[in-house]
Amino acid sequence: MNIAAHPQQIERDTLIGKRIQKKDAPEKASGKTRYLHDLNLPGQLYARILRSARVHARILSIDTSAARALPGVHAVITAADVPDQRPIGVARDHLPLKGDRVRSQRDEIAAVAADSEEIAEQALRLIRVEYEDLPVIADPAAAVAPGAVQIHPPRLAADGSVLEPGRAGNVAMRFDYGHGDIAEGEAESDVILEDTFSLHYVTHCCLGVSGIIAEFDASGNLLMYSNTQVPFLHKREFAEYLNMDPARIRIIQPPIGGGFGSKLDVYPFEVICVFLARAAGRPVKLVFSREEEFLASPTRQPVLLTLRSGCKKDGTLTFRQVHTLHDNGAYTSWGATTPFVMMQTFSSLYRVPHCDYHTTAVYTNNPYAGSFRGYGNLQATFAIEQHMDMLAEAIGMDPLAFRLQNAQEAGEVSGQGMVFKSCGFKDCLTTAAARSDYLHKHRDNLAARDAPGPLKRGIGIASMLHVGGGAKIYPSDGCGTILKLDDFANVTLITGASEIGQGSETVLSQLVCEELGLPIAAVTVVNNDTAITPWDVGVHASRTTFIAGNSAIGAARKAKAKILAAAAQKFGCAAEELDLYGGHIVRSDSGEAVVELARFIRGLHFSERAELIMTTHYYEPPSVHQDKGYKGDVSAAYAWATQVVEVEVDTDTGIVRMTKVTGAHDVGRVLNRLGIEGQIEGGVVMGQGYALTENLMIENGVMRNPNFRDYKLVTAPEIPEMDISFIESMDGEGPQGAKGVGEAPSICIAAAAANAIYNATGTRLFALPFTPEAVYAALHGRTEKPYWKPWKPE
Amino acid sequence: MNIAAHPQQIERDTLIGKRIQKKDAPEKASGKTRYLHDLNLPGQLYARILRSARVHARILSIDTSAARALPGVHAVITAADVPDQRPIGVARDHLPLKGDRVRSQRDEIAAVAADSEEIAEQALRLIRVEYEDLPVIADPAAAVAPGAVQIHPPRLAADGSVLEPGRAGNVAMRFDYGHGDIAEGEAESDVILEDTFSLHYVTHCCLGVSGIIAEFDASGNLLMYSNTQVPFLHKREFAEYLNMDPARIRIIQPPIGGGFGSKLDVYPFEVICVFLARAAGRPVKLVFSREEEFLASPTRQPVLLTLRSGCKKDGTLTFRQVHTLHDNGAYTSWGATTPFVMMQTFSSLYRVPHCDYHTTAVYTNNPYAGSFRGYGNLQATFAIEQHMDMLAEAIGMDPLAFRLQNAQEAGEVSGQGMVFKSCGFKDCLTTAAARSDYLHKHRDNLAARDAPGPLKRGIGIASMLHVGGGAKIYPSDGCGTILKLDDFANVTLITGASEIGQGSETVLSQLVCEELGLPIAAVTVVNNDTAITPWDVGVHASRTTFIAGNSAIGAARKAKAKILAAAAQKFGCAAEELDLYGGHIVRSDSGEAVVELARFIRGLHFSERAELIMTTHYYEPPSVHQDKGYKGDVSAAYAWATQVVEVEVDTDTGIVRMTKVTGAHDVGRVLNRLGIEGQIEGGVVMGQGYALTENLMIENGVMRNPNFRDYKLVTAPEIPEMDISFIESMDGEGPQGAKGVGEAPSICIAAAAANAIYNATGTRLFALPFTPEAVYAALHGRTEKPYWKPWKPE
Repeated sequence: MNIAAHPQQIERDTLIGKRIQKKDAPEKASGKTRYLHDLNLPGQLYARILRSARVHARILSIDTSAARALPGVHAVITAADVPDQRPIGVARDHLPLKGDRVRSQRDEIAAVAADSEEIAEQALRLIRVEYEDLPVIADPAAAVAPGAVQIHPPRLAADGSVLEPGRAGNVAMRFDYGHGDIAEGEAESDVILEDTFSLHYVTHCCLGVSGIIAEFDASGNLLMYSNTQVPFLHKREFAEYLNMDPARIRIIQPPIGGGFGSKLDVYPFEVICVFLARAAGRPVKLVFSREEEFLASPTRQPVLLTLRSGCKKDGTLTFRQVHTLHDNGAYTSWGATTPFVMMQTFSSLYRVPHCDYHTTAVYTNNPYAGSFRGYGNLQATFAIEQHMDMLAEAIGMDPLAFRLQNAQEAGEVSGQGMVFKSCGFKDCLTTAAARSDYLHKHRDNLAARDAPGPLKRGIGIASMLHVGGGAKIYPSDGCGTILKLDDFANVTLITGASEIGQGSETVLSQLVCEELGLPIAAVTVVNNDTAITPWDVGVHASRTTFIAGNSAIGAARKAKAKILAAAAQKFGCAAEELDLYGGHIVRSDSGEAVVELARFIRGLHFSERAELIMTTHYYEPPSVHQDKGYKGDVSAAYAWATQVVEVEVDTDTGIVRMTKVTGAHDVGRVLNRLGIEGQIEGGVVMGQGYALTENLMIENGVMRNPNFRDYKLVTAPEIPEMDISFIESMDGEGPQGAKGVGEAPSICIAAAAANAIYNATGTRLFALPFTPEAVYAALHGRTEKPYWKPWKPE
Repeated sequence: MNIAAHPQQIERDTLIGKRIQKKDAPEKASGKTRYLHDLNLPGQLYARILRSARVHARILSIDTSAARALPGVHAVITAADVPDQRPIGVARDHLPLKGDRVRSQRDEIAAVAADSEEIAEQALRLIRVEYEDLPVIADPAAAVAPGAVQIHPPRLAADGSVLEPGRAGNVAMRFDYGHGDIAEGEAESDVILEDTFSLHYVTHCCLGVSGIIAEFDASGNLLMYSNTQVPFLHKREFAEYLNMDPARIRIIQPPIGGGFGSKLDVYPFEVICVFLARAAGRPVKLVFSREEEFLASPTRQPVLLTLRSGCKKDGTLTFRQVHTLHDNGAYTSWGATTPFVMMQTFSSLYRVPHCDYHTTAVYTNNPYAGSFRGYGNLQATFAIEQHMDMLAEAIGMDPLAFRLQNAQEAGEVSGQGMVFKSCGFKDCLTTAAARSDYLHKHRDNLAARDAPGPLKRGIGIASMLHVGGGAKIYPSDGCGTILKLDDFANVTLITGASEIGQGSETVLSQLVCEELGLPIAAVTVVNNDTAITPWDVGVHASRTTFIAGNSAIGAARKAKAKILAAAAQKFGCAAEELDLYGGHIVRSDSGEAVVELARFIRGLHFSERAELIMTTHYYEPPSVHQDKGYKGDVSAAYAWATQVVEVEVDTDTGIVRMTKVTGAHDVGRVLNRLGIEGQIEGGVVMGQGYALTENLMIENGVMRNPNFRDYKLVTAPEIPEMDISFIESMDGEGPQGAKGVGEAPSICIAAAAANAIYNATGTRLFALPFTPEAVYAALHGRTEKPYWKPWKPE
């Protein structure tokens, strides 16, 4: 190797596990980030949507004439103006503009595009709609009661022929899962418990409300500036919906002010805005008000859940049987599919030899539910982890020992077919328990329950299992990457993976830097334009670090191989004798600098060789689709966590204060310590809100608190102390060993809080949220809430 | 091969040579294109520049206090405010903000960023500047006269030390070229002619005036929305200039309203806007007024050119000797390098056994010159092709025969080392002559010269040679491409090559479609963002179709190979048995459809194979750098053209009307017939303006006509009839055989018009433009123009 006699020694350093500031943090912290709200196109019109004044009614007439006549109005559309509209949504049961009937308070009847929002609002007020009221179905039990009005009756054409068959019995979705034999499980059991849990409405509260700018160019191509989390699925859906060549649809995602699963579906406002743009021949911007965001963005799906579970005296779990009844709301979005994730917890959180699960989602006239961080797992875990405590108590075991006895280890396969290749479950349990001093505090709190004074302390534990290596739901769960190096050894990483605030840009940059030995600032991430980025299925299922990370690593390794091959040729050695770090090509044996990487790259480019380093890679995880019985290893890896929650309960007022959360998370490997801590802290607070304060109050189909004064998010002074530990199980397939963690930190909080309140007070709470009113009522034996009655189907 | 028994027969079609509408035509024709002028960023400020009130003066003081105090003003900068400014431009002789002296009317003294253009203008009016006048050098002969004031004296620091050495004798650039032996050439000659030609100032008149938006983000990264034709060179220059990591600089090119070479350099307004953005901490937009565009954008370089040439009686050219004196203006931009292109015409347009060329560019207090479509070749050809007619006349040969006798053929190497691999020169000559009936008309016009009446008809011929396969000027002349196919077999072509209106998006799309058998609408071109696109040297030297075209073909062929390899595997055959056309994979022998391409691509993606088709390619042409004697095969191909111009001269008024232009262009191969016709038509009109109407009038350094009323562009009714033929010499290296054509169509027009006026009137015009005044004066023997005196250096 022909290098200098006394070469520079290059320190090998790594960014993995370090605290790396998010690449977009300075922009966001300084208020310079340009969200969709900040974008305005020349000639742009502003849209507003007229929503229903009734919860459930026939529409008799819509008169838009006065609105159309208003100066400054460029387009007014109703169902009659878009005869080509078709149903959207997961079950294709939802017409964006309602012409014949409205089924919920949020229903879209007309829309206006005008020179300003003010004019558009004024135009809405000029639209006259006549209704004929229908009975309102306000809870799922009423929906499936005999004689209930059919919310989706068959849709008939003028000649009486059936356009859509309607949804009989108001059932939106129903399925059954099972492994093992419940009867056998019951027979083996020394203890059997059965309880019904009630899970309420919450909503995402993204700081960036829903919005879109839609525009057709002069050639009829559609450009949407969209906050979607699934740009490629979105593009395909819109192409099908609008019967357009997909080549003519392009989606650009401006920086997204939070997604949390709320932006996985196509919603009426998006279709309506496209229709308005088409009608007006101008770009049209539609951004929700905060009230509208509450009213018309999706919710976490409410569930009535009856759990029956058993164990032996020796602490072995025997079986679980679950029935869930989901309030689907008036239309079907991803909320209806959350049972598939709940199922994983029912079937596979701890060893469960026998399990069956029956679920039904029914139409009501309530808001409809979408996907939401955790995707049903908060609901499932709330029930399962309370029963774990209750079973332990019933057999006189401590809750930690009971859990450890049933917790899985690496190499096990669950009843549902999930293969736990890496598994830090037991480490999560012991670490969280040790760092929180769980066992001592649990014992001490029990002893102090009956001490005088209203303030009681409690500690509760809960664990969770979630996909951590993508989820093979769609035909592909992959992600594509294009990588190029410029003449200064700076990298452009073009990835299909969307950034919705989770920090993926930073983590992907780290992974690339690790391969190429570059500093984080050397990477520019391009990730928001379907015309440019390679395909990716979208941001969901905690998959981006794992899937997009492996894709980015693949592209970076190809680049490294090209560089080292060229260097080996130039310096007369084998590629294996060289490595990349510290911005240099170095001797892999000694770490001595051979040449500065940027200089070498320029030499490759500006020489007879004339080579630019550009690579592409597509990563598809080695997971499989579930079979017809919902069994299969659906994720390339699984994430585990245990969270211990400490509370103070004021028994005089019912106020529950969350004082500390101790979490231990099996994340495979920490990539960006700062980022993952931030994600966990945010997730804990989201779980805290779910447990204690957030409650979307729907009364007879009407939302009572669509604002931040009455819908109570957790605020800074209420945030508990946190102690976060990472269990690095080094997943073999994970990027640098990492697994997904996006959803995990919210999942256990409510369950652990319920266990903590029980530890403090001896009162077990089966219904969320733990508001002062609800806790006070429970403590005083006066529980009465909507849905709060034991439920199982007849 | 396992395919259907009666497969569909797919027609093989090609887009090559067809009339393809430009992809951006509907947007542009409907006024929807968003040029830089239409972009406005949140928080954006508006900048204006204070220019000199004098042509040549010392600056004694600048008082900006009143401007700074004006409400709505966010930043005011002068040289004193940016101590880190350094000289820009080709010779690094140009400080963006002038602190000590001004050297021309356009000189920048201060700049303001304010809430509106109006406030910025008002602030400019509040700035007080005191000057001390210096003598004005208004023509190049005066600049080199003994005792002339030094326009760039040494720049001294406060302590008297020399910061910059200054430019002695006002010489900006000087060089000498030669091949053969002039003395020998003269000795062989039967006829020797010597004349001096005067070439004037014109300017590009881009419909989109100069402009930039500059913005620093919260991390200190610089984003420029820029009309530059050379984004990657620009990025590098700004990084060096601002002493910034190049990773922190990103250039986005909005659709560009014409370049024509005017946007190849870094200009003061760009640097100033960046300084303002830095000072104000806000995005700053600076767009020229039309008057400013005239005053402060570059010009075509004026030249005094003395040509001495000879031939033998038998029609063999013997030698050429050329001296040129260039008016460099006050600063040095690319205009100073146009002699390198002129040299190619002097040395190699026709066989010239002996040639020498001496050139000097000198500083004056006039506007400074940049590059401009043709890049000196209009000036060189103006002289050469008049002498060709004059030599032919002197030996009694017809002008066509004389040219044909000296025209090169494929395989020849010119004295300067240019290797003419493909060469349709003779076909250009004979085709243009035949289609215009040149010889008959030439003879008839001669015969009619002395007929009564003021209207005389003339026909003139001229030819040109220009680079047609790039030009190896920079260390690399290459272009990178990234290509991806989506699930619908739509292509994204990410190319380094910029679109400045020349139609490159469309041609590149055609070339990709030809390889992949797809329709033109299937391609989206991404080409305007340095963060995304691979490196390209820029739009100049008629190189985009050739260089970027070959790069795009390379990427498309790799994609095709991947697809056919996968298909061969799937269908159990050899890849060679398959081909792509009509949107299908077909049997290459029979053209029978095997499978629809989109369906196959989806199958690749959504299957266990999980493959996305993405490829990259970098193309560097096989050209070489010139040696120290300026010899070498600097382009991968050379383009030829002959244009015949017909005129009517009104001898009473001097008005010359161009009635018809017949062109024959060796373009290698026609790719987009509509596009290439449009380029030629536009180029002809630009040449017509150069010949007849356009004239930037500078008197004592002051521009007298900075507006479209007084600077006369050719308007629609004046455009001549055109007859355009294509000589398809099928260049072996060219993309589908094509060569560059961007600059060619302007080059011969003035020369052919001069020959036509001579044919009509017997009066030879050595100075441009042929305005009625100039022509009238020449016809009546009263020629007197600035520069119009024979010139050769002492």
